[in-house]
Amino acid sequence: MAKPLFKVSTPQEVIRELKNHLNLKEIIKNNIEIIDIKDSLDRVLAEEIIPPCNLPGFTRSTMDGYALRAEDSFGATESLPSYLRLIGEIKMGKRPELKINRGEAVKISTGGMLPEGANAVIMWEYTSKIDDTTIELRKPVAPGENILREDEDLKAGEVLLKEGHKLRPQDIGVLAGIGKVKVKVFKKPRVAIISTGNEVIPPQDEPQIGEVRDINSYTLGACVKKANGIPIYSGIVKDEANFLEQEIRKSIEKDKVEVVIISGGSSMGTRDITLEVLSKLGKPGVLVHGVSVKPGKPTIVAIVDNKPIFGLPGHPVSAMIIFSLFVQPLISWLQGGDYNDDFHQKIEAELICNVVSDPGREDYIRVVLWKENGKFYAKPILGKSGLISTMVHASGLVKIGLNIEGLKKGNKVMVKLF
Amino acid sequence: MAKPLFKVSTPQEVIRELKNHLNLKEIIKNNIEIIDIKDSLDRVLAEEIIPPCNLPGFTRSTMDGYALRAEDSFGATESLPSYLRLIGEIKMGKRPELKINRGEAVKISTGGMLPEGANAVIMWEYTSKIDDTTIELRKPVAPGENILREDEDLKAGEVLLKEGHKLRPQDIGVLAGIGKVKVKVFKKPRVAIISTGNEVIPPQDEPQIGEVRDINSYTLGACVKKANGIPIYSGIVKDEANFLEQEIRKSIEKDKVEVVIISGGSSMGTRDITLEVLSKLGKPGVLVHGVSVKPGKPTIVAIVDNKPIFGLPGHPVSAMIIFSLFVQPLISWLQGGDYNDDFHQKIEAELICNVVSDPGREDYIRVVLWKENGKFYAKPILGKSGLISTMVHASGLVKIGLNIEGLKKGNKVMVKLF
Repeated sequence: MAKPLFKVSTPQEVIRELKNHLNLKEIIKNNIEIIDIKDSLDRVLAEEIIPPCNLPGFTRSTMDGYALRAEDSFGATESLPSYLRLIGEIKMGKRPELKINRGEAVKISTGGMLPEGANAVIMWEYTSKIDDTTIELRKPVAPGENILREDEDLKAGEVLLKEGHKLRPQDIGVLAGIGKVKVKVFKKPRVAIISTGNEVIPPQDEPQIGEVRDINSYTLGACVKKANGIPIYSGIVKDEANFLEQEIRKSIEKDKVEVVIISGGSSMGTRDITLEVLSKLGKPGVLVHGVSVKPGKPTIVAIVDNKPIFGLPGHPVSAMIIFSLFVQPLISWLQGGDYNDDFHQKIEAELICNVVSDPGREDYIRVVLWKENGKFYAKPILGKSGLISTMVHASGLVKIGLNIEGLKKGNKVMVKLF
Repeated sequence: MAKPLFKVSTPQEVIRELKNHLNLKEIIKNNIEIIDIKDSLDRVLAEEIIPPCNLPGFTRSTMDGYALRAEDSFGATESLPSYLRLIGEIKMGKRPELKINRGEAVKISTGGMLPEGANAVIMWEYTSKIDDTTIELRKPVAPGENILREDEDLKAGEVLLKEGHKLRPQDIGVLAGIGKVKVKVFKKPRVAIISTGNEVIPPQDEPQIGEVRDINSYTLGACVKKANGIPIYSGIVKDEANFLEQEIRKSIEKDKVEVVIISGGSSMGTRDITLEVLSKLGKPGVLVHGVSVKPGKPTIVAIVDNKPIFGLPGHPVSAMIIFSLFVQPLISWLQGGDYNDDFHQKIEAELICNVVSDPGREDYIRVVLWKENGKFYAKPILGKSGLISTMVHASGLVKIGLNIEGLKKGNKVMVKLF
């Protein structure tokens, strides 16, 4: 038991080690698939999108009213209206057969195509129909008013969306608009989740005294899904090096995963086994052993033949926090995307009591949020990192930076929501 | 064309009308299913969760070290250590067969079960093993230190999660922890999306002059998915009352949807058709015709035999904004959940120029966000609501309230991200 305390890495160092030792390009170039745009929400583009055509593709009215030559409306007012000859109506979805000459107008609906000769639309609210062939205008319109030019939405040939862009509803709409119904995206990374521990049993089994049900596989599986990966549940492995080694090999070779998460090994014996296995599986092996994060210190990060493997702490709270710091960004990179924590949902709140923290480590405090008179308040939940219930009662986490000695009652904090 | 301008409703009035006229209980009581917890992320509980057992279920160590009677460590210091007799080791996952008497200790790993007689664990860092049967302690521990009591995480019989709670990774973990591998949740609401317009064609077709590809079905379908509903794409219906009526009936009767969205009817003719059909389909019929939202005014909201039906504006920007204001909360209620816009992702930013707005309506401004020196800035994107590209270039929306006359350069705004 007389082992030296391991040298811990800061979270920034862990991210740097991962980026330095991982050949991301090599992984993602083989992980591309073509899917229907109906299934493409939140998927990351593996191609650049350049519209082959203008949008809308022809000059359209944006209002219900009359298409006309703007010049014919100049000077029209409530007291001195102008009068135009009504020569017909534009049919939706058809190329107009008529042509507007000086002094003429044609009825048009929103989305209708402007006829030749017209350069504006006047809204019907500013007109009156005098008889079947005459309308009155009570307002002038400028050339171009109430119309969309044929390339006003999109210009053919100009880059619209870049590779690496995560598709939102409007992006999918615009793909439909240019006729692109299939799109090239990066595959969702497959992440194996291995639970270890002689005391851990599957949740459907009845625990004997001394045994506990597997919590981490389920928590982490859901975290993988939330991060847009595919969890591969590998089940529970007993605390023996050769079982663990077999399971990791099977995950990589048979299940074709891009990432392996080993969870449950918080006890020193299990950590030693994980370390032993990850050191001999391949190059470069173990990169990080211990991080300056609380809770979450006993974390192992390895890369084995370009596959990242994480030994997460066994305590469920620690496992979730370490996942969000390292595995979540990694899943994002592995599908060709960026990861920017700035854009993860945070809410500003006022802390209702002091919180202590040791400098030299990042502290993650579980808090409950509530709103009172339009303002959010955060109350820390104290409790051991072995208690999953503290995460269930919490609304989110507050980070205390590496070199900050605690926070004071009344401080403004940013709460990252789960 | 001489129709009166319709009386518009405020967004609050629309929500009130929906809540008043919808019998939500009736809908959701029949929309329950039992699913595997592995598939339950973001699903809403249709049952209360009460643990049938304590968690962890037995007293466990939270550290690697030695289990002992705390009393035997009292007074131990670096200079005056105490010595205890080492009587064995706790096997993980087993009920310990040995018992701790005065002056005795047993080796234990994180997660191991405390033996009878022990009431604390001392971390191995504060001990030395003198020989096979003797350890030295250099620090006292208090009773209860470094252990989890058998009901410290969860107490059997106490309500843990309420009906209506949306499941997060930690909630799924705790369900696994209590052996609940199947869970009762509300079904995802099915939402029919009908596009209308004689000029609208499916995206895979080549448009003739005057035709446009269907954008809204795809944008709105992705919005439905994002809101946790199931989109049912009904395709494109020509601008004729009986076609629209048939399609709505088919969606409700055959596709068994809970909500119908009709999109594309921005022109007055189409709006009239939608109004005509929704007025005669069933009770109470049309509730709202026109909302004080820009863009998005020409919105129709109806309830027909307890099915909400929305006539969304045809302009893609307007359709998305109206969806987020009314359909998104509705999808949340329909699966038994709350809807609290406070918890939707917003980022505080500084506006870089003035924006005008008329009082008496809610204005939604598309903005681009960027970060400079740790601070976010928002630049408005001006452009007609017919331009889907403005939404593609935008990062999110800024709301200008009903009675606010524009915003000034330098104002702090909350940007709701897409």
